[in-house]
Amino acid sequence: MPDGRLLIGNKRYSSWSMRGWLAVHLAGLDVEEVLIPFVRSEGVGATPAIQAATPAGLVPYLEHRGARVWESLAICEYCAEQAPGLWPGDPAARAVARSIAAEMATGFRGLRQAMWFIIGRDFSGLGRTPAALADIARIEAIWADCLAAHGGPFLFGPRFGLADAMYAPVVGRFLAWQPEVSATTRAYMDAVRAHPLVARWYAEALAEPASWLLASYETPPAG
Amino acid sequence: MPDGRLLIGNKRYSSWSMRGWLAVHLAGLDVEEVLIPFVRSEGVGATPAIQAATPAGLVPYLEHRGARVWESLAICEYCAEQAPGLWPGDPAARAVARSIAAEMATGFRGLRQAMWFIIGRDFSGLGRTPAALADIARIEAIWADCLAAHGGPFLFGPRFGLADAMYAPVVGRFLAWQPEVSATTRAYMDAVRAHPLVARWYAEALAEPASWLLASYETPPAG
Repeated sequence: MPDGRLLIGNKRYSSWSMRGWLAVHLAGLDVEEVLIPFVRSEGVGATPAIQAATPAGLVPYLEHRGARVWESLAICEYCAEQAPGLWPGDPAARAVARSIAAEMATGFRGLRQAMWFIIGRDFSGLGRTPAALADIARIEAIWADCLAAHGGPFLFGPRFGLADAMYAPVVGRFLAWQPEVSATTRAYMDAVRAHPLVARWYAEALAEPASWLLASYETPPAG
Repeated sequence: MPDGRLLIGNKRYSSWSMRGWLAVHLAGLDVEEVLIPFVRSEGVGATPAIQAATPAGLVPYLEHRGARVWESLAICEYCAEQAPGLWPGDPAARAVARSIAAEMATGFRGLRQAMWFIIGRDFSGLGRTPAALADIARIEAIWADCLAAHGGPFLFGPRFGLADAMYAPVVGRFLAWQPEVSATTRAYMDAVRAHPLVARWYAEALAEPASWLLASYETPPAG
């Protein structure tokens, strides 16, 4: 009997679900995974099934031992209370980890709109809007700062943590859309992609049925 | 000699600054307040002065005993580590508090765009776009749930905490734009507005010099 359940959307499309799922697995919570596929006509978002099943009409949504948690950052904090070491131990590093995690949660709309999250497609060279490129420059600066300060291969050192979980879907966008990036960024992308949990998410995304494909996501932008 | 500094924008316009400022004061941090006025021609956002002074080009930004923290939610978490009781003590209530705090930080764009944050103006009856009204309905539901579960007058009981700090600028929007709200919502708005820190923020906002006024914010929308 698991301790609760985690509601997510399609692994192929739902970047927010990936963050919550990574946090829950990093913390080792024993929860049932409930995937509510996005509906073809409705796109990614608050479908009636997701509205009915969650407090805010959003995935990911976690129920665990009586607690109800939504929003990726809140799930990250919940998981950090359940398992040690998911945020950096040093207070100043932890403050930066939370700052960049929140910067991801609230920002980078230029990137998110132009280079949407998708697994299994090659959109190399597309989506390079000025707003997306400005966001990518800021993300590369964040990653370079953290990797230089803590020695990599992950943002705060040898262990893949919650800050990496928040940025793992950005790595996914970069892998699909292939913006021009530095060697430092490329090495970080490789490290994230090779992490066992990320590899598992990718494998499960690629195994989703063809009937779940959404044309609006599968069609590359003109460009 | 203070322990650091808090960078904020105009108290009249900067809802995010208000959140960080409330968190820092709730935690009792001894920091110098540095207000960088938004520039007339540039509107609210990443002006060159703010870009130059902060890691992400954003206010609020906190430096405290060697830690550097930006994004309101990260500042809230930092403050929660510095002083007890800013999040609810019960784990399930704390999970909800963080969920609704993050929901505020990442969402409600309909409200934020139609009913911008401003102190000292009466825009009663304006800004009632469908997206804003949908967001207001969700916010009223969140507040009603929390007030019923914890007895008020604040979201998680007798003490004004970080969840209240995150929603205090929403109260400010409601006070300026006066959407139709329930008696429960009105009572919560009154409680927040009367809190000494909120009252101080308002007083200081109203004392800002006329030269700081931005026409784009002072001009009510057509409607």
